[in-house]
Amino acid sequence: MAYNLLKGKKGIIFGALNNQSIAWKVAERAHEEGAEIVLSNAPIALRMGTINELAEKINAEVISVDATSLEDLENLITKSMEIFGGKMDFILHSIGMSPNVRKGIDYDALNYDYYHKTLDVSAFSLHKVLSTARKMDAIKEWGSVVALSYVAAQRTFAGYNDMADAKAILESIARSFGYMYGREKQIRINTISQSPTPTTAGSGVSGFDKLEDFSDRMSPLGNATADDCAGYCITLFSDLTRKVTMQNLFHDGGFSSMGMSFRAIEQYEKSFKECPE
Amino acid sequence: MAYNLLKGKKGIIFGALNNQSIAWKVAERAHEEGAEIVLSNAPIALRMGTINELAEKINAEVISVDATSLEDLENLITKSMEIFGGKMDFILHSIGMSPNVRKGIDYDALNYDYYHKTLDVSAFSLHKVLSTARKMDAIKEWGSVVALSYVAAQRTFAGYNDMADAKAILESIARSFGYMYGREKQIRINTISQSPTPTTAGSGVSGFDKLEDFSDRMSPLGNATADDCAGYCITLFSDLTRKVTMQNLFHDGGFSSMGMSFRAIEQYEKSFKECPE
Amino acid sequence: MAYNLLKGKKGIIFGALNNQSIAWKVAERAHEEGAEIVLSNAPIALRMGTINELAEKINAEVISVDATSLEDLENLITKSMEIFGGKMDFILHSIGMSPNVRKGIDYDALNYDYYHKTLDVSAFSLHKVLSTARKMDAIKEWGSVVALSYVAAQRTFAGYNDMADAKAILESIARSFGYMYGREKQIRINTISQSPTPTTAGSGVSGFDKLEDFSDRMSPLGNATADDCAGYCITLFSDLTRKVTMQNLFHDGGFSSMGMSFRAIEQYEKSFKECPE
Amino acid sequence: MAYNLLKGKKGIIFGALNNQSIAWKVAERAHEEGAEIVLSNAPIALRMGTINELAEKINAEVISVDATSLEDLENLITKSMEIFGGKMDFILHSIGMSPNVRKGIDYDALNYDYYHKTLDVSAFSLHKVLSTARKMDAIKEWGSVVALSYVAAQRTFAGYNDMADAKAILESIARSFGYMYGREKQIRINTISQSPTPTTAGSGVSGFDKLEDFSDRMSPLGNATADDCAGYCITLFSDLTRKVTMQNLFHDGGFSSMGMSFRAIEQYEKSFKECPE
Repeated sequence: MAYNLLKGKKGIIFGALNNQSIAWKVAERAHEEGAEIVLSNAPIALRMGTINELAEKINAEVISVDATSLEDLENLITKSMEIFGGKMDFILHSIGMSPNVRKGIDYDALNYDYYHKTLDVSAFSLHKVLSTARKMDAIKEWGSVVALSYVAAQRTFAGYNDMADAKAILESIARSFGYMYGREKQIRINTISQSPTPTTAGSGVSGFDKLEDFSDRMSPLGNATADDCAGYCITLFSDLTRKVTMQNLFHDGGFSSMGMSFRAIEQYEKSFKECPE
Repeated sequence: MAYNLLKGKKGIIFGALNNQSIAWKVAERAHEEGAEIVLSNAPIALRMGTINELAEKINAEVISVDATSLEDLENLITKSMEIFGGKMDFILHSIGMSPNVRKGIDYDALNYDYYHKTLDVSAFSLHKVLSTARKMDAIKEWGSVVALSYVAAQRTFAGYNDMADAKAILESIARSFGYMYGREKQIRINTISQSPTPTTAGSGVSGFDKLEDFSDRMSPLGNATADDCAGYCITLFSDLTRKVTMQNLFHDGGFSSMGMSFRAIEQYEKSFKECPE
Repeated sequence: MAYNLLKGKKGIIFGALNNQSIAWKVAERAHEEGAEIVLSNAPIALRMGTINELAEKINAEVISVDATSLEDLENLITKSMEIFGGKMDFILHSIGMSPNVRKGIDYDALNYDYYHKTLDVSAFSLHKVLSTARKMDAIKEWGSVVALSYVAAQRTFAGYNDMADAKAILESIARSFGYMYGREKQIRINTISQSPTPTTAGSGVSGFDKLEDFSDRMSPLGNATADDCAGYCITLFSDLTRKVTMQNLFHDGGFSSMGMSFRAIEQYEKSFKECPE
Repeated sequence: MAYNLLKGKKGIIFGALNNQSIAWKVAERAHEEGAEIVLSNAPIALRMGTINELAEKINAEVISVDATSLEDLENLITKSMEIFGGKMDFILHSIGMSPNVRKGIDYDALNYDYYHKTLDVSAFSLHKVLSTARKMDAIKEWGSVVALSYVAAQRTFAGYNDMADAKAILESIARSFGYMYGREKQIRINTISQSPTPTTAGSGVSGFDKLEDFSDRMSPLGNATADDCAGYCITLFSDLTRKVTMQNLFHDGGFSSMGMSFRAIEQYEKSFKECPE
């Protein structure tokens, strides 16, 4: 069901790889709600994924961008403003990657070049997008920027590695820049802290399935899906949430406010049962 | 601008006194978005306020309720279900009152009967509404309950008195009941932590105007108004936020994430200027 | 090992039932560190427990107090000041009880008289102690008050029931009163959020053992014991922590900052193993 | 007054520049409490400061270290273990520097090389210290590591710039590494979030004096001084806080839990007074 919540609005969506991606769902949903979209992803993601399928479906252009490159970002925003015929209303940042995770390097023995790379791709990219947009005055007053985060920014999850630090600084950047951009242009910047989601990126984390199960049993409403997240993003891009800024918004079926659910402890208890001989 | 976000939805709105009230604005906005509303307030509020004007405008019934009375609440829900022809989709709890504040009793010398009364009216009332609704199975699956809170639940504000404790327990009740009602019926329960708002209740707090000024200068987007809050409530009652539960959501132009803004410290600095003789 | 950290200091310790009690351990430790103690507990606790054994050991008087009674508290403070020959330096509040939990009433169907009782005993008692002490000017400047809490104040634990709300408001009272008493007399007020501890009270919660196991596996340092807590309290009563106030301090081996540990998820995973036929 | 709290303990203290430095006070206090210290700072800080005065006073060696250099850190730890005759018990990390702040570059136009440098010096240095110590197994079981932070990690302060992000990731590193090092060796890692302190580094921030004044009036106990911080650090290095880990501990006279104090709003109100003509 569509409401025309984003009628006439324009925005850039980063990070749609394939139809499992949260960004993909957000793009589809934003299109349904009347928005005009520009899709952007890294060159390698464009090659490996199926973004053109989405682009066709929602009639969007795809612009290849290395989100760590100021030049690429400036080019993206220039082209987007041409396509949009002016400023944009919203941006979704769904970008994250850790070479340390990919190479199986443990957190207590991080490679520091990779660590900088993790932050560059997963967090500084948000700063660069915002800094470039601001320099070019590319976002309309009361525009909305959302970046995707995870509760690992507050609590440690075994195996999430330096992505936890990346999410912590991502949320800090959203606050810091939210202050600057808010006071100047009334632009709001928030992060959504999403349930573990079985995207291509998410599923890659070792032990993802057990964590997803635990998270689902802990959450009174179950894990939030990529589709759920798309709906939530739409509200944050809409004019109905204009005074929400500098927030980290948990979208997780209640997980973040749970200490222990009956369903999870019941399952946990089973682990102590021994098989009869 | 309306989006039909609440088309076909039905809900009870507590706490509309006059057209300054947040609840009043929410009722108007929900009506615009297609919802059918039952209004409820305390007998004295019905006499002192102008709720009938609102009721007429949005074609809603008004039911007098002492929100500390289980009997009254059961009556309200029975009648509402008759009016709605079945279960409801949402509830707004905008109820708060402290006899200690009213009588100017300082926090370190609280009257304990009044203290219980503060909690009974301002916090237990949410538990009672939920408990009664649950017993009568009065809320549809994926229904949404929102209660209004204030950042005094996390940080102490001089003069806010035992209302700070009331808001702290209100937020706890939203979490605790959010777990119970979520796992059973997928009903979500959240609190909105709203900017200081010049309603009849808010303005009554001593020193409100200076605090409002400070809060406004601290918040990059300025204070959120009652109208802003109405828009935000609509998103939380809609189907787009189904997996958000047990959260306290700051709706405050960024205040809660600010330590010190340039505008506020600039004003503060003026306080040290001395007049020339 | 003792350091004379509390040499010459005097304080009241509420809530020592038997040698499993946290308050018992704190009293012993405070005594070792040179403090003079008055012990206080409810009449029924004095009958059921073994507090006299402790009193003898640390040469302390025991004063029976219903902590919901202002009269009793005034009597306690009067007598304590006689014993101490003046003002005191610290107070430990380790008091909690829920009739709803005791009678097995579920959270969504709370008895409201019991609910008020839960708060009266478990939270308002802190306010009453502070209010009485302040009225009688019974605490020295830079004195220290500590109350025991649990992470259920922030996150919902199945079965913890209305004690979660009680702990949330207890922490709020510590903040609210911490502001009042701090600005006037430099008295600091904090809560310690302690690991689940197998005291008589703690063990009574249904499913305590499984939760304790989970909590222990989640916490990198394991659960904090009652003995550990005693050590931590001593630091908070000492002169070394004079500027710490209005804080909720997690003392839990790291639990509160964990999302998922390897040890816990490894155990959880076992729950899915099926027995061979 | 000394308690022998650190008798026989050994530790490295980073960041003592001159007798205004928090690290200087911690070193003095730790020495008084019986600890053996190695002092470390950057070559330029050794030249500009007066650390040798301190070294003489507390009979400590000074080792020059670029805290971004793994080689330097390895050398420091090797030498320290020689001096100590074995493993150490504690480490204080009081290191922070932002080239963006120094060069007056605004947050919305950060130089990204400088940004990486800010993180490298102010946050990754903690990771490197821990990683090196762990690799060399240089910290005893139940050892304690403390890093200094600021509330800007949670709330935005105008002018604090990319140091806010640095403190956010510093606190995340303390959690992430706290998990790893805790489960393996029972080593605890915490951050202290300290009041604005008029050190050489602190005072350099533009508008520091007004912020310090506001912070002091907001805090019921006033700002925590460098001396106060030293006392608090001692408790965290001692054996009395063994189960406190992965925490960010506010040491700020109550500031972090305040929304508005009477003293601050009273001062603020003066800013609106106009001079008589």
